[in-house]
Amino acid sequence: MAINPTTCTSVSVREVGLRDGLQSLARTLPTAQKIEWLRALHAAGVREAEVGSFVPARLLPQLADTAEVVAFARTLPGLVTSALVPNLKGARAALDSGADAMLLPLSASHAHSLANLRKTPDEVVAEIGRIRALRDAAGARCLLEVGISTAFGCTIQGRVDEAEVLRLVQAVLDAGAERVGLADTVGYADPLQVARLFEKAFVVAGDRLACGHFHDTRGLGLANVYAAWQAGVRRFDACLGGIGGCPHAPGASGNVATEDLAYLFASMGVPTGLDFDALIALRARLAGWLEGEPLHGHVWRAGLPKTLRPPARA
Amino acid sequence: MAINPTTCTSVSVREVGLRDGLQSLARTLPTAQKIEWLRALHAAGVREAEVGSFVPARLLPQLADTAEVVAFARTLPGLVTSALVPNLKGARAALDSGADAMLLPLSASHAHSLANLRKTPDEVVAEIGRIRALRDAAGARCLLEVGISTAFGCTIQGRVDEAEVLRLVQAVLDAGAERVGLADTVGYADPLQVARLFEKAFVVAGDRLACGHFHDTRGLGLANVYAAWQAGVRRFDACLGGIGGCPHAPGASGNVATEDLAYLFASMGVPTGLDFDALIALRARLAGWLEGEPLHGHVWRAGLPKTLRPPARA
Repeated sequence: MAINPTTCTSVSVREVGLRDGLQSLARTLPTAQKIEWLRALHAAGVREAEVGSFVPARLLPQLADTAEVVAFARTLPGLVTSALVPNLKGARAALDSGADAMLLPLSASHAHSLANLRKTPDEVVAEIGRIRALRDAAGARCLLEVGISTAFGCTIQGRVDEAEVLRLVQAVLDAGAERVGLADTVGYADPLQVARLFEKAFVVAGDRLACGHFHDTRGLGLANVYAAWQAGVRRFDACLGGIGGCPHAPGASGNVATEDLAYLFASMGVPTGLDFDALIALRARLAGWLEGEPLHGHVWRAGLPKTLRPPARA
Repeated sequence: MAINPTTCTSVSVREVGLRDGLQSLARTLPTAQKIEWLRALHAAGVREAEVGSFVPARLLPQLADTAEVVAFARTLPGLVTSALVPNLKGARAALDSGADAMLLPLSASHAHSLANLRKTPDEVVAEIGRIRALRDAAGARCLLEVGISTAFGCTIQGRVDEAEVLRLVQAVLDAGAERVGLADTVGYADPLQVARLFEKAFVVAGDRLACGHFHDTRGLGLANVYAAWQAGVRRFDACLGGIGGCPHAPGASGNVATEDLAYLFASMGVPTGLDFDALIALRARLAGWLEGEPLHGHVWRAGLPKTLRPPARA
């Protein structure tokens, strides 16, 4: 198999635990602990984080402090701070917050889109156009990124047509999105499907296709990351401790774990800028903050292989 | 990325739980339960199993009933039965048992070889030559397969040179082995390394290179399986419930789980002949037999995606 010649270019990791992870938990993590989490992530080398969601507090009380968390995140040097934004009202709040980027979710599954956002995918595309106009009118620099969720299948409707995903990639770019990513929201993707869909989406979007978001629900998370990386993806979402599981699959793994992703790329010699030991230490603190919640991931337990450790000094 | 044109050929899975899995547990599973396990595996479509090890009972009391288990396995139609054999004495017992194949382990790591078998790798090569001569003199049909363990790194010596692994692949074939596989005994491998080493080993061994054996110690098990499959490997070892963990990494995952491997290939449309539901049901029974032991794997918890289930009848 021919390895992509860009093998040695670095990979960047966006930590999404403070949004995708926490929104799936019933408990609310105090703002002070979110700030601790962000500070330690930054110290561990993370340079991009999705820190919350501008949705009504009654829908997601866990993320009601998003503006405050964004304000803190902006004080961390070099950290790109994004927040999820489901609609025009959320976009206004995101612009007010000074976030560097907003993540606009669009479900490729018609059924999931209706159930989750009460809009069809094309209604979401239209809203993205309005958000772009709002952003431009405000003269703000906040980057617009669309995450195409359920791109690899949906728990409600099952199969999602690749042609529909590709049509939506083009549509959101036409509507003014500056970056787009593909998300396996429910852990249905397999490596061949990931390679195929990303290859096709690169033809549509070029380097504006800039994120792979994978869940480890059925154990294929890192195999899918590897397949996406082979297809040319160089930026991935992940959650420390693999949080972000689906409430419909109790105990199942959530997002790919940040520390496992860091290990995957370190083992292949691909730089991520992440400090493995610092991530593992932070994972232990997170386990304390989220006591009683299942954390996931693998490498924290066995530790790095001897082959990845520098030899002990004599 | 170009997918190997043999994408749609089937993959075969050798269940090694009764050997690699059980030998790592302190308890001894009664022979009757091993027989139940084998019967259910066979009903689930498994057509190859490593059922024990011909080593002195004082070293591995868990596998002292290997001859009896082989005798039962031989009654299952179409099942290829193998046993691990560390030396000439074990080979005699394997030939007496009527096993279809013997698996001869050879550590590519010099340090691991000395610690585990008290022989250098080249002394093991010589023993393999003697075992071949014994087999031929006996006129037996028992196939000789060598598993090159620690091929991707070693917990004792760390790095294992690829050139040494390739030299040993050639040496064991020269000594009379009919098949050879590469094993990531300690969960050190990464997907790029797997692709690279298998590609080189195929040049040496051609289609006599016929097995990939991966542990999921650090979460890369299935990514490594995928990389090996891309390199052309079509036969894999696995343990139901992912048993076979390393005593030095308490709680860490063991071998790749048979049910997860079945799911990986099913999701990619690659036939394995395995019945997923039957494997999951058997996993639940195994959890009962091994009560108190950690089982691993992922897909058992979330179940198959809707996209892999036939539509419900009206």
